Amino acid sequence: MLPKGFYANGLHSGIAKKKNKKDLALFYSAFPCTAAGMFTANIVKAAPVLVSMDHLKKNDTSIRAVVANSGGANACTSTRGKKDAIETCSRAAELLGLKSGQILVASTGVIGQFLPMNKVRSGLTALCSSILNRTGSEKNAVEAIMTTDTFAKTASATALISKENITVWGCVKGAGMIHPDLKSLHATMLSFILTDAAVSPAMLDAALAQAVRKSFNCVSVDGDTSTNDTVVVLANGVVGNEMISKPGKHFDSFAAALEQVCIDLARQIARDGEGATRLVEIRVRKASSEAAAHKVAATIATSPLVKTAIFGHDANWGRVIGAAGRAGVHFDPEKVDMFLGDMQVARAGMPVKFSEARAKKIFAKKEVVMTLALNNGSHEAVYYTCDLSYDYVKINGSYRS
Amino acid sequence: MLPKGFYANGLHSGIAKKKNKKDLALFYSAFPCTAAGMFTANIVKAAPVLVSMDHLKKNDTSIRAVVANSGGANACTSTRGKKDAIETCSRAAELLGLKSGQILVASTGVIGQFLPMNKVRSGLTALCSSILNRTGSEKNAVEAIMTTDTFAKTASATALISKENITVWGCVKGAGMIHPDLKSLHATMLSFILTDAAVSPAMLDAALAQAVRKSFNCVSVDGDTSTNDTVVVLANGVVGNEMISKPGKHFDSFAAALEQVCIDLARQIARDGEGATRLVEIRVRKASSEAAAHKVAATIATSPLVKTAIFGHDANWGRVIGAAGRAGVHFDPEKVDMFLGDMQVARAGMPVKFSEARAKKIFAKKEVVMTLALNNGSHEAVYYTCDLSYDYVKINGSYRS
Repeated sequence: MLPKGFYANGLHSGIAKKKNKKDLALFYSAFPCTAAGMFTANIVKAAPVLVSMDHLKKNDTSIRAVVANSGGANACTSTRGKKDAIETCSRAAELLGLKSGQILVASTGVIGQFLPMNKVRSGLTALCSSILNRTGSEKNAVEAIMTTDTFAKTASATALISKENITVWGCVKGAGMIHPDLKSLHATMLSFILTDAAVSPAMLDAALAQAVRKSFNCVSVDGDTSTNDTVVVLANGVVGNEMISKPGKHFDSFAAALEQVCIDLARQIARDGEGATRLVEIRVRKASSEAAAHKVAATIATSPLVKTAIFGHDANWGRVIGAAGRAGVHFDPEKVDMFLGDMQVARAGMPVKFSEARAKKIFAKKEVVMTLALNNGSHEAVYYTCDLSYDYVKINGSYRS
Repeated sequence: MLPKGFYANGLHSGIAKKKNKKDLALFYSAFPCTAAGMFTANIVKAAPVLVSMDHLKKNDTSIRAVVANSGGANACTSTRGKKDAIETCSRAAELLGLKSGQILVASTGVIGQFLPMNKVRSGLTALCSSILNRTGSEKNAVEAIMTTDTFAKTASATALISKENITVWGCVKGAGMIHPDLKSLHATMLSFILTDAAVSPAMLDAALAQAVRKSFNCVSVDGDTSTNDTVVVLANGVVGNEMISKPGKHFDSFAAALEQVCIDLARQIARDGEGATRLVEIRVRKASSEAAAHKVAATIATSPLVKTAIFGHDANWGRVIGAAGRAGVHFDPEKVDMFLGDMQVARAGMPVKFSEARAKKIFAKKEVVMTLALNNGSHEAVYYTCDLSYDYVKINGSYRS
């Protein structure tokens, strides 16, 4: 269920070519929200990203809604794309009795095509009307932002803040073009997070950055970077907690709930990676710094050779250490230990005899954990990824058609 | 045919599990050679890489032979691996009546397994004997270094230097774990280049670095980085040309022949990339620097989304510009032009209406060229890559088994 004061809906407007595929979503707050957002660092930014960045910059205390569509990324569309994204906001604002700057906008789909604005317009009319009549459902909204996702991804958490129960709810879409690194975010990942807590814009920014570092920043499907990545948090303060406006106990409680939601969503992205058969957790331990651990984990998580080996249930651990070695991080190869699940496969950079039968059992599970201990420090990082299967090739060999 | 004074052979010694697969090669010069080499920048370097680097450093004017095996990378094998690589050199030296330091060694295959040294020993005995009896063939040698390669890759060029006809001959193996960037070289690529020209070690180094920048440095199959990459040039001077020991006309003639051989071999690698159905040339033009053009081309060439789209014959050009945008290079997305073959698909960052039928015709050819003009300078770079197919997943899902 959505946090108090939020409403959402989604419908098929015809932007997506597939019949009846919901393609237009609206997330709406009955009250003004403080807001924070993080966007793709790809220098080719989609028009809706540029428009939402602009609206958030000018106005982070009275955002009221997010309009999101699948079926078209509105990227590589230059001035016409920007005009279309702005019109989407202003039309939604008009229909909802708001100002254009109170609306954020996000898109996902094929890059390099203009949005069919006649369909967006009529879709928005129906969608805003359903929201004002409270006849929508968040299920529809979440389905409307899905592209190659095979299941809808939501998560929620609660916390007690100055005696009030607050809820953080989030959804995310994304199965391919996924390698978020927010601030430098890589992915066609759209995530909308809603909370009925009262949080100042600065504290909302801080909590989001902190949560993203351990979640969306640590997930990769294919290492490829989108032009459209968007993560937005809206906080409407409806529960009436004392406004969180500084670090401390209340901030920590809120930040923990937000982080829990983001990690849950990030894991769901990896599990539903295009063509994925396994959720893979890459843990890099005993590194010289968290940044070093993160870099090594990211390089392993994006290696096609590692990912195809996992698909083939092949305990080819040399590929993991090989990928680590090209991460641009210093470590001593002759100190490295490696584990597949809880089974050691390398010690001090050398092979350890292991049971292939036990390896097969570890690969048979839906989640596979690989741990690399660099043994030159005390820092660690975790990365969520998936295997690389025939279906990834199938899905992406025919995405546009 | 090999340049004058060189002999080569290859045979099945049993290192490779596959029956009758040739797995041990010897390249031999009847006279001492000046030599130059470039090796993987992966910090996890295989034992033979470390040993060859050491031999070249101590002795770059009297190298006589290279021993290379497929069937085992001898990487992640620590002290025992180094002992084995050193023994390979000393045993070959003994059998050939040379010193251990005159032998270079290279390996390719699964990482993290020890070499079966009893098989290496008996294989070397037969191999060295065949070389001394001049009963071998370079065809056997080239076949013995192949792993997932589907055809043997050789190239040669000639030049006239101080009235003498010199020959440069090269071979290469490599179909996966290919993303060479020599000096920072990524690949399980082994390339052995032989010439009967007389060239000083310094000029041989310079010519190799120059050739590699335009060839092996510009080819990628999967962006993955090997622990074993090795490119070696041996020059025995048998034709008796005036020694090339400084820049000038003679150096330029030799360097051009070497570059021609390296580019030919690099293109063969891309054409034979694991599972590849198309050789793809990524041309980045009108960039602010050659380094910027190279970085953008490399990012496009390693994008799984671009490569699967090519496999699917899908003119999804937005993915190409999307990949360019995450290359870490500055350009103005609204100035970019893009061409598929000779057909323009984007102008000034916006879609251009194009014929899907014409796109299908372009994809029907064995070689596909994609050109991105950044329009913010006058530099360019070319990258050779291939598509990402079901067979890449198949080959790499079961490589070790």
